[in-house]
Amino acid sequence: MPDEFQEALDKIFTADSELYASRGFARRIGYGKKPALINIDLANAWTREGHAFTCDGMDVIIPGVQKLLDAARAKGIPVVYTTTAYTDTESPNSDMGLWKEKIPVEELKAGTEAVEIDDRIAPLPTEQVIVKKKASAFHGTNLSSYLNSIGVDTVIVTGVTMCACVRHTVEDAIAEGFRPIVVRECVGDRIRGAVEWNLFDIDAKFGDVEPLDNVLDYMRRNEP
Amino acid sequence: MPDEFQEALDKIFTADSELYASRGFARRIGYGKKPALINIDLANAWTREGHAFTCDGMDVIIPGVQKLLDAARAKGIPVVYTTTAYTDTESPNSDMGLWKEKIPVEELKAGTEAVEIDDRIAPLPTEQVIVKKKASAFHGTNLSSYLNSIGVDTVIVTGVTMCACVRHTVEDAIAEGFRPIVVRECVGDRIRGAVEWNLFDIDAKFGDVEPLDNVLDYMRRNEP
Amino acid sequence: MPDEFQEALDKIFTADSELYASRGFARRIGYGKKPALINIDLANAWTREGHAFTCDGMDVIIPGVQKLLDAARAKGIPVVYTTTAYTDTESPNSDMGLWKEKIPVEELKAGTEAVEIDDRIAPLPTEQVIVKKKASAFHGTNLSSYLNSIGVDTVIVTGVTMCACVRHTVEDAIAEGFRPIVVRECVGDRIRGAVEWNLFDIDAKFGDVEPLDNVLDYMRRNEP
Amino acid sequence: MPDEFQEALDKIFTADSELYASRGFARRIGYGKKPALINIDLANAWTREGHAFTCDGMDVIIPGVQKLLDAARAKGIPVVYTTTAYTDTESPNSDMGLWKEKIPVEELKAGTEAVEIDDRIAPLPTEQVIVKKKASAFHGTNLSSYLNSIGVDTVIVTGVTMCACVRHTVEDAIAEGFRPIVVRECVGDRIRGAVEWNLFDIDAKFGDVEPLDNVLDYMRRNEP
Repeated sequence: MPDEFQEALDKIFTADSELYASRGFARRIGYGKKPALINIDLANAWTREGHAFTCDGMDVIIPGVQKLLDAARAKGIPVVYTTTAYTDTESPNSDMGLWKEKIPVEELKAGTEAVEIDDRIAPLPTEQVIVKKKASAFHGTNLSSYLNSIGVDTVIVTGVTMCACVRHTVEDAIAEGFRPIVVRECVGDRIRGAVEWNLFDIDAKFGDVEPLDNVLDYMRRNEP
Repeated sequence: MPDEFQEALDKIFTADSELYASRGFARRIGYGKKPALINIDLANAWTREGHAFTCDGMDVIIPGVQKLLDAARAKGIPVVYTTTAYTDTESPNSDMGLWKEKIPVEELKAGTEAVEIDDRIAPLPTEQVIVKKKASAFHGTNLSSYLNSIGVDTVIVTGVTMCACVRHTVEDAIAEGFRPIVVRECVGDRIRGAVEWNLFDIDAKFGDVEPLDNVLDYMRRNEP
Repeated sequence: MPDEFQEALDKIFTADSELYASRGFARRIGYGKKPALINIDLANAWTREGHAFTCDGMDVIIPGVQKLLDAARAKGIPVVYTTTAYTDTESPNSDMGLWKEKIPVEELKAGTEAVEIDDRIAPLPTEQVIVKKKASAFHGTNLSSYLNSIGVDTVIVTGVTMCACVRHTVEDAIAEGFRPIVVRECVGDRIRGAVEWNLFDIDAKFGDVEPLDNVLDYMRRNEP
Repeated sequence: MPDEFQEALDKIFTADSELYASRGFARRIGYGKKPALINIDLANAWTREGHAFTCDGMDVIIPGVQKLLDAARAKGIPVVYTTTAYTDTESPNSDMGLWKEKIPVEELKAGTEAVEIDDRIAPLPTEQVIVKKKASAFHGTNLSSYLNSIGVDTVIVTGVTMCACVRHTVEDAIAEGFRPIVVRECVGDRIRGAVEWNLFDIDAKFGDVEPLDNVLDYMRRNEP
């Protein structure tokens, strides 16, 4: 983002943070005892060039997620991936729902390479790959009851896009009773500003935004 | 079921029906305008011999579902199948949840033939096959928002088992706002009595139990 | 229930239990570490004479629930009550949903004495009273995220009716990741047989049916 | 917002809108056939001075909502209000969940004047007032099944705050299958910028942001 934009946003955030502090908002939710790593829509349609859904910043996001995966697997921390895909993108009985009226979900056909998880961060066979139809990883999926059944209390969130699937997932996570931790270097979008203002809103009201090193420290200290 | 058992159940049902009638229960919910056909767990682990989950009555259920499929496809009525399957049936991070503490879900491994839909009633590529983890077709799945988004108001329900997945699906269906119609000849179980008493409870409080011919008539008259 | 009916049901249950045992069903889910007590629809319309919803057996159920409440409150075990009530039982925009097409929910008007919890088992001001619109205590309510947020893993279930609200609640409970324990003496219905066959199905597939004394022992031993 | 901030945001939005247009995002979802009016958290803690939750802009929001209420009631369009309130704001078994770790929900005690709907826009006795515990009006509430059961396909959304309860409600609305229409003049927040960037994200991906006059026109033309 050009410096002038970042500068303008920073000024707004500073003023807003003062109001939040004076009113008792923007508290720290903190890490819980048992985390899961949730990678949102890091499939080829978002991580590779040439798609309507292509996002920026994969040169930082992918290596960051690789480090998180290493840390998670070393400790037996459960890993969940999501992708967004539709069985029927053409008929009147399509499973795209209303979202096709706002964004080009017709490009996300189930079974195509576009909706497969990027092989630089490929899931292991026992890791969960959730095929969702909506923005939130929790909506119309088994994620909440899965995490509850294995005792998870904290969700480490990465992926794209910040202004849709990541944000809605984080909002649902705290509503469902999980502590959301968003990894600052591992989330992205395709438009300017969206990462900044959505991280600002989340940190004020829904979860903690933490740097990658801090999250890696927590995961490496976690007792399985 | 031996005649003496059926006779005893029938006596109870008769007395119960009188009380329900006097209190205003067991009303008719009726058919709506736009149905979907929902086939619950008619996958090989339930429809073929030799599994822990094998059910009785497939000589009647499968031909009945074939007729329903023909009627649905002729009219463009949406068809949904469910199966129950788990990615990880062994590790502490298994997606089986608590159900493994009650029933042998460890035999329902994702990707095996056991959890594939019986090929006598194979889905078309555009029909929805929902992989669920719990009894209800609605729990942790996109079914409710899928049906709403395509305007469905009525669910024609077939499959197994009557005392678990079919019953819970019907209860959730009316709660979600869909008129449940259970096809009497097309539901089954593996224990005696379960079909009878669960159909009785459903017809009193959750949905209408209708004979196959009546349902076929409705579907054939349906205006797409 | 006349002896002949009970005898016939018992014969069916015995045969069914043998099949379940040979197939690996009807396992014990057991008690977890942190229980909550959930009392389903023990409001006047169900517990007192003269209503369409009046149930049998309150001479046993109410004293049983009183003992459970004493045990829960002594240990700081969270207590949740449900009732079923509707704001608008008359207009086209009623919140009764489709259930009015099956059962007389129009008699359950919010704000009336009929839908208040029976004062023999009155809630304390800090205990949760959930007003639900459907059979399950979980459907369209905050119950699941409430229980998760306070770390509950086990739900002790009492109330009515066995064939609708209690059963659907138990099915949802295990789906959501809570161990359901149904207190045999503290559940009821208004028709004959419904308690027996629904407890049979639940014990086989969804939760453990336990006698009151066993549940009281567990609660009294629970470490808050 | 000072002109310099608005100007900076507008520049970002212009660049972002070009990218969205070139990729096929920011489509129009449009109005459906049967709307409901959903007023989010227009209770005294948000609409009146002196609370941690007090929001700006009530001199415009309240008169706008009054006009929407008049239009809705004239046409029999269902009206839903939400408020956020907690039964137990003190004990370990509190219903506040994790949200108290981020924002001062302990000030939203059920039964107090603070959480009652502002009497300048008081609900009629038959209108639904939903007491929610989380940001979204859909989370842990009967809203989705209520709207489905009365055939609603479009939700007209007003209220506060833009960056939390309104945004999460809109995201859930489209996921559940309702067309979200946000009334530009009738939403607010307590921090600068939040209205602007959240409306931008919503209009790109989740619902249409429309001026009050346009929404009033639609409602007045609606055939009940």
